[in-house]
Amino acid sequence: MKHPLFEQHEALLNQAVHAIADRGYWTPYPEVPSPKVYGETAADEGRAAFESYLGADFDFPGQPAASGRVGSERSPYTGALNIRYPRFDVDTLIAASQAAAKDWRQAGPEAWVGVSLEILARLNKKSFEIAHAVMHTTGQAFMMSFQAGGPHAQDRALEAVAYAWRELAAIPTAASWTKPQGKHDPVVVEKTWKVVPRGIGLVIGCCTFPTWNGYPGLFASLSTGNTVIVKPHAGAVLPMAITVKIAREVLAEAGFDPNVVLLAANQSGEPLATLLAARPEVKVIDFTGSRQNGEWLEANCRQAQVYTEKAGVNTIVIDSTHDFKGLTRNIALSLALYGGQMCTAPQNIFVPAGGIDTPEGHLSYDDVVAGIARAIDGLTADPAKAVEFLGAIQNPGVLARLEAAEKLGQPLLDSRAIAHPLYPEAVVRTPLIRQLSTADSAIYQEEHFGPIAFVIKTVDSAESLAIVEDTVREHGALSFSVYSTDAATQLRAQEVAENACVALSLNFTGGVLVNQSAAFSDYHGTGGNPAANAALSDSAFVANRFRVVQTRRFA
Amino acid sequence: MKHPLFEQHEALLNQAVHAIADRGYWTPYPEVPSPKVYGETAADEGRAAFESYLGADFDFPGQPAASGRVGSERSPYTGALNIRYPRFDVDTLIAASQAAAKDWRQAGPEAWVGVSLEILARLNKKSFEIAHAVMHTTGQAFMMSFQAGGPHAQDRALEAVAYAWRELAAIPTAASWTKPQGKHDPVVVEKTWKVVPRGIGLVIGCCTFPTWNGYPGLFASLSTGNTVIVKPHAGAVLPMAITVKIAREVLAEAGFDPNVVLLAANQSGEPLATLLAARPEVKVIDFTGSRQNGEWLEANCRQAQVYTEKAGVNTIVIDSTHDFKGLTRNIALSLALYGGQMCTAPQNIFVPAGGIDTPEGHLSYDDVVAGIARAIDGLTADPAKAVEFLGAIQNPGVLARLEAAEKLGQPLLDSRAIAHPLYPEAVVRTPLIRQLSTADSAIYQEEHFGPIAFVIKTVDSAESLAIVEDTVREHGALSFSVYSTDAATQLRAQEVAENACVALSLNFTGGVLVNQSAAFSDYHGTGGNPAANAALSDSAFVANRFRVVQTRRFA
Repeated sequence: MKHPLFEQHEALLNQAVHAIADRGYWTPYPEVPSPKVYGETAADEGRAAFESYLGADFDFPGQPAASGRVGSERSPYTGALNIRYPRFDVDTLIAASQAAAKDWRQAGPEAWVGVSLEILARLNKKSFEIAHAVMHTTGQAFMMSFQAGGPHAQDRALEAVAYAWRELAAIPTAASWTKPQGKHDPVVVEKTWKVVPRGIGLVIGCCTFPTWNGYPGLFASLSTGNTVIVKPHAGAVLPMAITVKIAREVLAEAGFDPNVVLLAANQSGEPLATLLAARPEVKVIDFTGSRQNGEWLEANCRQAQVYTEKAGVNTIVIDSTHDFKGLTRNIALSLALYGGQMCTAPQNIFVPAGGIDTPEGHLSYDDVVAGIARAIDGLTADPAKAVEFLGAIQNPGVLARLEAAEKLGQPLLDSRAIAHPLYPEAVVRTPLIRQLSTADSAIYQEEHFGPIAFVIKTVDSAESLAIVEDTVREHGALSFSVYSTDAATQLRAQEVAENACVALSLNFTGGVLVNQSAAFSDYHGTGGNPAANAALSDSAFVANRFRVVQTRRFA
Repeated sequence: MKHPLFEQHEALLNQAVHAIADRGYWTPYPEVPSPKVYGETAADEGRAAFESYLGADFDFPGQPAASGRVGSERSPYTGALNIRYPRFDVDTLIAASQAAAKDWRQAGPEAWVGVSLEILARLNKKSFEIAHAVMHTTGQAFMMSFQAGGPHAQDRALEAVAYAWRELAAIPTAASWTKPQGKHDPVVVEKTWKVVPRGIGLVIGCCTFPTWNGYPGLFASLSTGNTVIVKPHAGAVLPMAITVKIAREVLAEAGFDPNVVLLAANQSGEPLATLLAARPEVKVIDFTGSRQNGEWLEANCRQAQVYTEKAGVNTIVIDSTHDFKGLTRNIALSLALYGGQMCTAPQNIFVPAGGIDTPEGHLSYDDVVAGIARAIDGLTADPAKAVEFLGAIQNPGVLARLEAAEKLGQPLLDSRAIAHPLYPEAVVRTPLIRQLSTADSAIYQEEHFGPIAFVIKTVDSAESLAIVEDTVREHGALSFSVYSTDAATQLRAQEVAENACVALSLNFTGGVLVNQSAAFSDYHGTGGNPAANAALSDSAFVANRFRVVQTRRFA
């Protein structure tokens, strides 16, 4: 008999499995924060729920014994959140996770997937609550917090569950192996197969997209039968705390130990992630963060499957365009969106010294740069509108990088501080653009995370593309954007993308940004360059989270 | 248009894809070396082809520039083979492989799979030739050389190709992403996806099952578009040299650079494998061999996906039986087959001190041990018959281990030397059984590869199973066999198997041995205990051998 939660969500699951093969546009989670979709009271309830967490203890029914309280989150808009999470010792977390595993690992694929899908259904209903939590930890503007932190993150989670199910469903539970023996009776061996999860999955989160980047690993591990410990970034705990709370409610209602999913919050600066990651019981690690931390995990946690998304250097190559206005508008928004604090935000813009061809005629190098600068100025002219996509600077490290970048190369466009009409505390900055030469590779081959872009003048697009290939091979990238009307250059760009193993976006002049990556269609990361060792999501992202144990017996 | 080789073999491929999901008995490659199946002249032609290699240079048309000759193979039956393979420098191999990759990686999944399947079709026709090569390098008897070295190895190869195709076929080549915009026109992005292989796949072979253990990695890498360098064990080059020769013929006929598949032969003792494995261009490594070498690769070759099959400690737990004669006969053959030189051969036999229940009444511990010893004596009484399953000892290291084991614990059954009626040089030995106590874990928790078994007297089967769980978790195993008529003990055995992540064989008293692992049905290894970090085969074995690069453009 099917698990009731599996049965309840099976139709959706089948659609998702179809979607990952079809890869057209599909989502079950509407991205519009509209009362028509989410209910007339959803917005107010979400805000109220968020506000109820502020200045209070955040506990999880059924949680293990805590050894104190932690909490150091600050809203980039309003200052300290003063939420106090339980502090669990590493041994406590591991023991609780292992105890919870006993029943969970026996429950089987349909239960794992059914529970995962019910958690997602409830997360979707709480999209407003999570949006406020994302906004007031990451500094994203509200609309992005809702979309990227809510429905789009849920999409990425469902996508991971769909991949997991596709693999799990391909393994039969039993078969008769009947080998003919000529005139004699056949040899018959009865076989059964059982999916065995690896152990504890550890999800190490980031402070900019805690749900969008955290959900794939969480749901991939959970839907393949592992227990999960979520170690959010100390600066962005609440979105994952709410997620864990909801997951635990579903688990408990379904008769499982809620400690199947645990939150491991820490005070900023405490080394909880590495202590957990080094434990032999931790068999899967999903990490989003710095190159340094990611490489430490890869090198030191060989007991575990380690999936990392680290730093990268995203690039735009401008060769020619059929729509210069669209190009500048699109690039301006790509650079401005959430103050460049996206792992997919472009940083380096290569422009040929001789300028580019457009439908309006040839434009000089200076014309191209001026066009982009003008587009950013226009886009950010009205503070009230600008803050709705710029968001706020998440942490002082980003601001420090921005200030350091103001001394690099030559000025092209200064970053401006914008006063937020509603939140006087918020640090809002427009994109900085500096000009570099191709010789400045020590600068432009490094990630400068934040509202920082470089224009690099090249001899021609061939040189631009050659530099991109080297840079991505050596330093990684999650996005690569090319503007060209020339078929040969487009082909060469595809070749570069394939050689360096990075996704290519061609001639993005309309309403989609290179920063954006849609679940069920866009692979986020390729797993083939240093920016990430896995893609979100594909079979490789899920297939090693479980193993199969066979029993065979004579019939 | 489909690649002609893909079209030619598509029906077989579809059957194989069905078989990996069904997991009943299936094979397209008959295991009987019969003239009715393989043709009246196949046996003679195979022998003649094998003999033509002896004492001669073995070259590959189209090979890169060689820097000399290597060759140190000895037949365990007839002595030095005196085959001289070309020596290629590491730089030469890497450069040739990368040059060959240019066209191969662009050819796409249908070409990769079609070429792989054509190679397999031709390998099957050469099964006699390969059987002689396997026999005269590994020391397997002829029948095993034919079956395990020929059709069964081809099965494992086809299985890997089927998994690869299942993953490759799930990735669409193109889609339109059409996102509704309410009353406005939808946003349309045209997307294409291209499978990009990782780079060079390195296959590092062993000297006991060069094809059976080598083919899965070779064919998994090849059918996902990688180029492959095969580094066979210096003691068993010929079977893989013939394989590489055939692969290169197919590649050349299909219009590809034959250096897509290269043989890297070395003189015994030269460190060619590690030099190749450390190269940054090598992105996938498939290894079968010692724990020490496997762990070195895992720790040091982090630029590559590393799949290892290493040492393990395989176990039989005897609790009770419905057929004691069947039990003793089955165990005797399991121990004797190819002189225990199988990665799946049992080593430790746990027997309760109080003896076991059988249909003929209770048998004491001594009765059980005597029954097994008697079965081995009976099985090996006739030298002419015995050599047909004992085969010959592959190398002096095995003999040295056997001699060392003769001093461990207490004697239960001595190993006897058997004179081979046809090959006076062959070292043929029957299984040794020594008695240990549970306190001798330093002995029995280590692999003693060869015709060496230990009987360990335990308090009861609960103790036996507890020791097995610990041993397999810490030291790994590829096989685990339990004899019990008791439902609770069987359940506990399954629990142990799941906890330690090892395949379980229950009550093997008939014509199938625990050593045997059938492609399309039995997962060989689980990838979840220290004996192997991957299973042959599953999705995890293939999914990380390629990546997907996407191009999206505005419509």
